[in-house]
Amino acid sequence: MPEAAIAAIQASFRQVQEIGPFSGQSNAWITQEAELTRAAIAAELGVTGDTISLTEDVSVGCNIALWGIDWQAGDHLLLSDCEHPGIIAAAQEIQRRFGVELSTCPLQATLNGGDPVAVVAQHLQPNTRLFVVSHILWNTGQVLPLEAIVRVCHDRPLPVLVLVDAAQSVGVLPLNLAQIQADFYAFTGHKWWCGPEGVGGLYVRPEARQELSPTFIGWRGIVTDATGHPTGWKADSKRYEIATSAYPLFAGLRAAIACQHQIGSVGERLQRIQSLSHYLWQQLQQIPEITCLRTSAPEAGLVSFRLPGQSHKNLVQFLEQNQILVRTILNPDCLRACVHYLTLETEIDQLVAAIQKFLA
Amino acid sequence: MPEAAIAAIQASFRQVQEIGPFSGQSNAWITQEAELTRAAIAAELGVTGDTISLTEDVSVGCNIALWGIDWQAGDHLLLSDCEHPGIIAAAQEIQRRFGVELSTCPLQATLNGGDPVAVVAQHLQPNTRLFVVSHILWNTGQVLPLEAIVRVCHDRPLPVLVLVDAAQSVGVLPLNLAQIQADFYAFTGHKWWCGPEGVGGLYVRPEARQELSPTFIGWRGIVTDATGHPTGWKADSKRYEIATSAYPLFAGLRAAIACQHQIGSVGERLQRIQSLSHYLWQQLQQIPEITCLRTSAPEAGLVSFRLPGQSHKNLVQFLEQNQILVRTILNPDCLRACVHYLTLETEIDQLVAAIQKFLA
Repeated sequence: MPEAAIAAIQASFRQVQEIGPFSGQSNAWITQEAELTRAAIAAELGVTGDTISLTEDVSVGCNIALWGIDWQAGDHLLLSDCEHPGIIAAAQEIQRRFGVELSTCPLQATLNGGDPVAVVAQHLQPNTRLFVVSHILWNTGQVLPLEAIVRVCHDRPLPVLVLVDAAQSVGVLPLNLAQIQADFYAFTGHKWWCGPEGVGGLYVRPEARQELSPTFIGWRGIVTDATGHPTGWKADSKRYEIATSAYPLFAGLRAAIACQHQIGSVGERLQRIQSLSHYLWQQLQQIPEITCLRTSAPEAGLVSFRLPGQSHKNLVQFLEQNQILVRTILNPDCLRACVHYLTLETEIDQLVAAIQKFLA
Repeated sequence: MPEAAIAAIQASFRQVQEIGPFSGQSNAWITQEAELTRAAIAAELGVTGDTISLTEDVSVGCNIALWGIDWQAGDHLLLSDCEHPGIIAAAQEIQRRFGVELSTCPLQATLNGGDPVAVVAQHLQPNTRLFVVSHILWNTGQVLPLEAIVRVCHDRPLPVLVLVDAAQSVGVLPLNLAQIQADFYAFTGHKWWCGPEGVGGLYVRPEARQELSPTFIGWRGIVTDATGHPTGWKADSKRYEIATSAYPLFAGLRAAIACQHQIGSVGERLQRIQSLSHYLWQQLQQIPEITCLRTSAPEAGLVSFRLPGQSHKNLVQFLEQNQILVRTILNPDCLRACVHYLTLETEIDQLVAAIQKFLA
């Protein structure tokens, strides 16, 4: 996190200490903090604040969309074959509870060729209600043509809703969700935005709101009558928010987003990421023991590669001892480096040198 | 929050800045922080750490229990008539989604007489699956005989599960959940424990774990095979945890709990609360325009009262201008003051004087 974000969080904690957690004044402060944060997020996504729900993390956002659909036995839920295990597990539980049909479509195989849009189109069924896909695949780093994917899903006799896991795309890609028209777009602030852990969000397309009921429900999402009895949902995306959160972190996320703007526009930042990931990918190609998953330069900041015959886990541990953090991915079996625009070329050189040292 | 909690949170944020949010070392740190926090909470509740799930707030804990039951159309869900609107709204949504029968039992009327255990027993039906009740009623402040209520629910041909909203009891009452045998006990750290907003928990009785499936699902609750594919749940209550949280707050909650111990044992603290709330109740009784909801001294820290013919909202605003925070309750229509063991008798005198000034 940028120091400005830490400072903003500390100032917010001081503010809560000053005005207390329970009062008219503190309620007004919380409401304002939440509004400012939804607005700051919305501006990055090309939408308005009323479409944003603040959540604890990207998984909560995905779960709100997964569970909020009025599932009927026999409905079909389609996932890409590159989704995060947590989301797969949630989909499996929905399959079990509601008698829903669950299957995947093979997008992993389109990393170096083929047409992901055609693959999705081929796997949609007459009973498909929802397609779940990541904007940037967390395992291979592929950037999907989301707008075209959404179009084939919506252009069906019974339009298919689209839930996007945006854990790896928010803070990386220039986004215009109003144009992409994804129905649900779930993200976190603590990855590419460098915000605090524990604040994320969910965008719900206004046209999809009627099809998505709140599931986990608390005082933040409801409206009540004069006797305090709940009578319905808040008019906008606040209906999906639950209850008390770590409010002082909101200012931290806003400060983190503001810091990104000081570095450059999102287009400039993506260009820098691509330039750096290209550099890393080229360096890795030089090492005979390494196979990069991509046969052409990475499209964003994730660079996945293999060392056949070597223990990926041992390499990760060796690198961490050298203050270099990469991670293992189990499907497909590989290592994944993340290149942020903050990454230095010298750090990439250090990673490459450390791998060579490990192999020596 | 005590300053020690603020300091612990700041130190944790510094720790994350130091080791980064993603690494073997940071994963180990997060795991340890969560374990220490579950253990600190469990010690207060008279149970072991493996029965505790960390949640964002009490509502999330209640929702985990409400949605995790394998509801069938025609099942009956019973609520007390004193539950929080957020919980009522969640129960109404379950009624709508699964065709469940929903009704309430009249505990509010037992505030000054009558037997809440008998009322619950009279309202259980052959098809009742779950009873939802607060340990301390948030509106009237009544402390319910929870162990006896759980016993009548469990002593049925088909035992009825019991979900307890413990927002007002954790940090106030001496607790031995192993003895009370409630199935689900949901709470927050930011009320009577004076911890940070955004950390709460859910106790799940080990015997009830098999009857409660995870609903909102992420990487924290699942186990995976060698290819990363999800194959089931974590063995203990971690299965109900979702994904990334505001981990630095965990140390803040532990510090807040530790501060309570410096003041006195939970029994001593409750005695102090009761002594102070008794004092407030007595003072309020002296004001002719005021009707206290209870005809005998309050059992814990919540003191509810009415000013017939006056605007409760206006009084709350008047008091807040005088740095005194009480709140309105809409059902029953009343005002509620919270007396903590940290409250001073002079502060109670100030409240009483301010009310008299408002009435003058």
